[in-house]
Amino acid sequence: MSADLPEDNRPLDEFAAIARYFKPLAGGDPTARHLDDDAAVLTPPEGMDLVFTKDAMVAGVHFFEDDPKDMVARKLARVNLSDLASMGARPLGYLLATALPEGSRVEWLEGLSRGFAADQEIFGWSLWGGDTVSTPGPATLSLTAVGAVARGQALSRGGAGEGDLIFVSGTVGDGGLGLRARKGDLPEGVTADSIKVLESRFLLPTPRMALGQALVGIASAAIDISDGVMSDLGHICEVSGLGAMVSQAALPLSDAARAVLELDPSFWPAIFAGDDYELLFTAPPARRDAVFKAAGMAGIPVAEIGRMEAGSHPRLMDEAGNMVTGSLAGYRHF
Amino acid sequence: MSADLPEDNRPLDEFAAIARYFKPLAGGDPTARHLDDDAAVLTPPEGMDLVFTKDAMVAGVHFFEDDPKDMVARKLARVNLSDLASMGARPLGYLLATALPEGSRVEWLEGLSRGFAADQEIFGWSLWGGDTVSTPGPATLSLTAVGAVARGQALSRGGAGEGDLIFVSGTVGDGGLGLRARKGDLPEGVTADSIKVLESRFLLPTPRMALGQALVGIASAAIDISDGVMSDLGHICEVSGLGAMVSQAALPLSDAARAVLELDPSFWPAIFAGDDYELLFTAPPARRDAVFKAAGMAGIPVAEIGRMEAGSHPRLMDEAGNMVTGSLAGYRHF
Repeated sequence: MSADLPEDNRPLDEFAAIARYFKPLAGGDPTARHLDDDAAVLTPPEGMDLVFTKDAMVAGVHFFEDDPKDMVARKLARVNLSDLASMGARPLGYLLATALPEGSRVEWLEGLSRGFAADQEIFGWSLWGGDTVSTPGPATLSLTAVGAVARGQALSRGGAGEGDLIFVSGTVGDGGLGLRARKGDLPEGVTADSIKVLESRFLLPTPRMALGQALVGIASAAIDISDGVMSDLGHICEVSGLGAMVSQAALPLSDAARAVLELDPSFWPAIFAGDDYELLFTAPPARRDAVFKAAGMAGIPVAEIGRMEAGSHPRLMDEAGNMVTGSLAGYRHF
Repeated sequence: MSADLPEDNRPLDEFAAIARYFKPLAGGDPTARHLDDDAAVLTPPEGMDLVFTKDAMVAGVHFFEDDPKDMVARKLARVNLSDLASMGARPLGYLLATALPEGSRVEWLEGLSRGFAADQEIFGWSLWGGDTVSTPGPATLSLTAVGAVARGQALSRGGAGEGDLIFVSGTVGDGGLGLRARKGDLPEGVTADSIKVLESRFLLPTPRMALGQALVGIASAAIDISDGVMSDLGHICEVSGLGAMVSQAALPLSDAARAVLELDPSFWPAIFAGDDYELLFTAPPARRDAVFKAAGMAGIPVAEIGRMEAGSHPRLMDEAGNMVTGSLAGYRHF
């Protein structure tokens, strides 16, 4: 009888890696069962619905090969958290699948676990389970986020009504310009400070958890900006069966973004390129005050940028009152 | 103002692909919200706990590049379903992340959706959400399975008691031998029928859903066999703080496996190589009848193979009553 390990067995260090890097992320959350079982077991919070979302990222496609690994973990966590925010949910826990190159596996696990640990502190959730495997290809990660929202109260893309006002949190366009910055592709004359601000917005978005939860019962529709403000508004239009009119002048821009656009207005499309992870949402005019009150309580600035109208497409009006036409802003599926 | 799409936008066909291949898998399940929202929303079934598990598979690592794509989908679904079975849970829904090579993306989506559709019919669950991205590397898939079990009743690896009997469903070793068959690595003289049986057990395991649910309240500990019967028993030992004694002669083997071993006993290690996706579980001797009654109701044969004992390792006794020593059977972390 051979004493060799069967050849399809997983590497000897998988259990050690889970114990060392992942068990601390499960902490004392009883749902995780110390990662000792085949699955996590959650007793759902009373009176709540559960919210599930799952996003994947691939090295060289969704992040740069040389991005710090803890930052990759945090971006993955945050794009998923942003989806929970857009539904009005608070985070409970997550499951993680990693496919990592054999040669840099320990380095990856160390960096990822450090990033997830930092964000667990901030967002108050923990690791419930997952899988870690090897790949001959680029590092590939997926995270499944689980959140909770009061029963029947989850926000959706489909609830906007004609005449509802359109709002956006924070500033838009920093994600798209941040990607250009990361590629060294901004116009001459942009300050080092602006470049840093934009790059960091791209590298480490801030999901609007408190605002999302505060908008439950106030917003009629919501989405987070991943594809771009106009493109994501298109999703609200599509599911709500409406059109929309947005005032370009009303779009909230950061000082860094304004500086870029003043130097070179041809960068405007980057404003609509996405990766902002701000909340884009609608509310009836009668709830305008409630929106700003919720934003104030959440400590996140909100701007009114337009109005839902009859139709089926979002439209953009420039400062002179003319319609912006063409394929600007990810109008790609219209 | 440029009319070009921002360069980081996702390919034009993502929305079309989701609509065509994935929306039908969401069907009328209200949790999926027709895949129109940022996340799925589940109202948890009354009095139930929710069970979560997530497994990943990489082309060339966990399946062969030329495996039929619908079979890859079904194996991915089934290894996750098997984890739910080991917790005593029934399946509710799943989230799917796919990272697919650009050149074969549509072919992949078509094949995967066909496989998932077939298994949705069998297992009574549906697609709730996920993400589909491109990769320059091998196709990489991860699935998050969500199930439900009566509150506080989930099975675990940690509940075995000293003196508990050890049982296994179906037959063990077909997965390991099936991999060898798939590699054309079986001894001369094995019949084409046996090769086909073993290969199909490797390619398309059968998760023991009905048995897992029937064992709730009966089994003291449970796990599904992915690493190998002795290795997975080692996990029960570790978490339960016990040892175990297994009789090699009592291991249930298929006719195909017996035929291989009679031709060449050096294939014994493949019996312990895993990928069986049978249930391995323990129960106090007083529940032996209840175990066999549950197995009968679930329509799945169960064999008694040993007993939990004081100690910290599983041990294997051969037909002559001698201990099998060495690193057989994935004793790799002892």
